[in-house]
Amino acid sequence: MDGTTQGVVVELADTEHVDHSGPHGYASDKQAYLKRMRRIEGQVRGIARMIEEDVYCIDVLTQVSAVTKALQAVSIGLVEDHLGHCVVDAAKRSDDEGAAKVREAANAIARLVRS
Amino acid sequence: MDGTTQGVVVELADTEHVDHSGPHGYASDKQAYLKRMRRIEGQVRGIARMIEEDVYCIDVLTQVSAVTKALQAVSIGLVEDHLGHCVVDAAKRSDDEGAAKVREAANAIARLVRS
Amino acid sequence: MDGTTQGVVVELADTEHVDHSGPHGYASDKQAYLKRMRRIEGQVRGIARMIEEDVYCIDVLTQVSAVTKALQAVSIGLVEDHLGHCVVDAAKRSDDEGAAKVREAANAIARLVRS
Amino acid sequence: MDGTTQGVVVELADTEHVDHSGPHGYASDKQAYLKRMRRIEGQVRGIARMIEEDVYCIDVLTQVSAVTKALQAVSIGLVEDHLGHCVVDAAKRSDDEGAAKVREAANAIARLVRS
Repeated sequence: MDGTTQGVVVELADTEHVDHSGPHGYASDKQAYLKRMRRIEGQVRGIARMIEEDVYCIDVLTQVSAVTKALQAVSIGLVEDHLGHCVVDAAKRSDDEGAAKVREAANAIARLVRS
Repeated sequence: MDGTTQGVVVELADTEHVDHSGPHGYASDKQAYLKRMRRIEGQVRGIARMIEEDVYCIDVLTQVSAVTKALQAVSIGLVEDHLGHCVVDAAKRSDDEGAAKVREAANAIARLVRS
Repeated sequence: MDGTTQGVVVELADTEHVDHSGPHGYASDKQAYLKRMRRIEGQVRGIARMIEEDVYCIDVLTQVSAVTKALQAVSIGLVEDHLGHCVVDAAKRSDDEGAAKVREAANAIARLVRS
Repeated sequence: MDGTTQGVVVELADTEHVDHSGPHGYASDKQAYLKRMRRIEGQVRGIARMIEEDVYCIDVLTQVSAVTKALQAVSIGLVEDHLGHCVVDAAKRSDDEGAAKVREAANAIARLVRS
């Protein structure tokens, strides 16, 4: 990770992490997620361009809301993939692993709801 | 606006727009907003890289929440600048212009709260 | 304010408050707001009843989301009334009063977006 | 359910519901949830009283944000309990039941994030 994104990783409590080797929940949709993130990157660049060109505040705001919505849709997809793979698999392995994954997922959902 | 951002402009009801010529609410902070948007663009690219490198779902989710929060902070800043300049100026020009700007701002805030 | 609501008042920075005597932004819609709040109170009681009767978690969750949405709609209405009356009136009285009201409103909007 | 809450139940797609007999996710915390809901009911009544007494808009808004936050905390608790009991139990019974419960939970989380 280069300087641009360094320092971005927040609130990652290592103690929360249980075993998570192997392919992750979003593995089968990886290309679709990458495509969505590239689209969002283009939207963010578009907002910067709007600010540079002195576009009207309200129109800039509308675009920022659109990008926020797009990011939340990505989050909801990631949560669903995570529950359907990582959490379900852990639950089948053992009650303890299932409980740990559920707690971790609930914390991520809480961050999502508050963001 | 090029192909990247085309189609992104949503919910811009033309009828909502009242006169908004001249420098906008965020004009004096323009460079700071551009810097924040470039940082957010880097964060979005960082998330795509995490997905490419099969980083654990929960860690990707945490980053998406961080970017959502950063975008909402930009929105709140834009709203404050807009109220402090465009809305206040309109209110001083005439009651009708003030009322139109207030309605437009309230609609933008509603989109923001729901996003 | 009685014991029921005591302790609820959060984040009210007294220093934020500028003069706000006289009728408030929502005065003309007061009865409509009271009606909405009574309806929301009924919805909250309905959720408690669902929990008492062991209704399925997802159905309880759906109701909680409905009440949250109803409260946010009330907030957006209050913000619009506040901007259209208190902020606009302050802006017409003086630049300083306008600026103080804008800052106060922006802080309230920020709390709303984050809640 | 009486007239007060009638009509409140929204977006309950019956087809989403899979078997959910037996005690629910929140069963063991039932008394704590009831206590939280009664407290929230008191807060909602407190807001109505503030409006009746013409309390300043911004102070009413602050209280509405506090109640919204309290409701979201209840939602997050219900989601965690639901994942830890209903979803985990279904996943252990069969892959199909697990998948159905995950989809249902993800839809509820999506409503929560958007509310």
